Amino acid sequence: MNNFNQKIKKICIEKNNRLCLGLDVDNKNLKNTSLQYMQDFIFDIIDSTIDLCPIYKINFSFYERYGAEGYKILENISKKIDKRAISIADAKRGDIGNSSKYYAESIFEHLNYDSITVSPYMGEDSLLPFVKYDKGVFILCLTSNKGSNNLQKLNTENNLEIYKHVIQMATKLNKKNNIGLVVGATNEKYLEEIKSLSQDLPWLMPGVGFQGGNLNKSIQFGEKQGLSIVNVSRGILNYGSGTIEDIRIATEDYTNKIREIL
Amino acid sequence: MNNFNQKIKKICIEKNNRLCLGLDVDNKNLKNTSLQYMQDFIFDIIDSTIDLCPIYKINFSFYERYGAEGYKILENISKKIDKRAISIADAKRGDIGNSSKYYAESIFEHLNYDSITVSPYMGEDSLLPFVKYDKGVFILCLTSNKGSNNLQKLNTENNLEIYKHVIQMATKLNKKNNIGLVVGATNEKYLEEIKSLSQDLPWLMPGVGFQGGNLNKSIQFGEKQGLSIVNVSRGILNYGSGTIEDIRIATEDYTNKIREIL
Repeated sequence: MNNFNQKIKKICIEKNNRLCLGLDVDNKNLKNTSLQYMQDFIFDIIDSTIDLCPIYKINFSFYERYGAEGYKILENISKKIDKRAISIADAKRGDIGNSSKYYAESIFEHLNYDSITVSPYMGEDSLLPFVKYDKGVFILCLTSNKGSNNLQKLNTENNLEIYKHVIQMATKLNKKNNIGLVVGATNEKYLEEIKSLSQDLPWLMPGVGFQGGNLNKSIQFGEKQGLSIVNVSRGILNYGSGTIEDIRIATEDYTNKIREIL
Repeated sequence: MNNFNQKIKKICIEKNNRLCLGLDVDNKNLKNTSLQYMQDFIFDIIDSTIDLCPIYKINFSFYERYGAEGYKILENISKKIDKRAISIADAKRGDIGNSSKYYAESIFEHLNYDSITVSPYMGEDSLLPFVKYDKGVFILCLTSNKGSNNLQKLNTENNLEIYKHVIQMATKLNKKNNIGLVVGATNEKYLEEIKSLSQDLPWLMPGVGFQGGNLNKSIQFGEKQGLSIVNVSRGILNYGSGTIEDIRIATEDYTNKIREIL
């Protein structure tokens, strides 16, 4: 049981859940805007949800906007989760090989996250340094935003849209069973076809909740083979008054909905 | 003179140079591997080359691999350059709008860099939060690595390769004259066509030196309209024994070559 895709599936089955809680905490919405308070609040979220959540996704932009101090929190979150759940560094990195190697060192060694999101635009050699680790690599495939129409859905000469080329690239690189795809839940009508091509690659699915993606279909298609990891961030963090108690309630609510569908 | 593309052209003309020195310092190659020594060394490079160099590019991977401590150096480099040259945060960011907004805050406000590199894979709405600033945005177009063949050169239905769609996107977004393109100098035979499409958008051209890109052609095509910014990192940092004196000599050497071509 060394490979990432088995590991993430195991913890999802153990917790009987597919919820990935996105720790996109905006300190400007908190009653105290200090970074220490923000970190404490995030730790409280983790403590109050980790019995239910198999996976946490940390979008780096929410932390990098505070520079070194924000990076310190990124270091601490990984320690706090401490292997009780899978951590996804949602950093969307990708560079020439030499630089991707250092990004991989940053995320997988220094920060010690279990997995990362990467951008495929620069091609295979930009992804290989991440794939070499026994850690997870979620490649952006068809994203949840409107801009996914600009390049990702362009049809190429051989009658494959760009995102399908990405699926092919992902499948080819998946020699260590540690690659997944980012598939926006908002792309409902594409899910069936993506599943037929991506087969057992796990899907990280943002876009449920605030962005309007359909929970039922996301899980139904994602779980045919592989694994459907449903990310919810604002839909949970902003529930009610956004207190730890409200976040717990929203997490239970999503968990129950997911368990009904499974 | 508020817009970025005028500003970067002005400083290039003033210093009579198009050299962008990539501060990709690997502390493992230094005689003292401490991060303090690394920062001091980078500061010495800047002091000994800033009379010649109009632009410095900082690849974030070299710093992020040390987490918060590395980020502290990123904060300090920007202060050290202190508007005496243009700084490019080579961070290759790009996310849904909400997150790109925070990445833009990170790079442009907290770290206070003059410009950034971004990935176009997620489309227009992922780039808009960067473009809104009066700062520079270099969009990955045709990169210098082998992986540029995987997606960027795929031909689409309407007979435009993906990188040409990116040029169209860049041109459309360039309402504030602050957008440039990353065009790998290794793509010699594509340069003429890219110029005809990208017109006066400045090019940031990695790949000269270590990666084998042609300096003459890069400048000749890039300068037809717009601006050719030639990035050299390892080709200067690793010159001779890699001392500050050697780096100065290599910087003078590239500067002289560039001035001859101009």
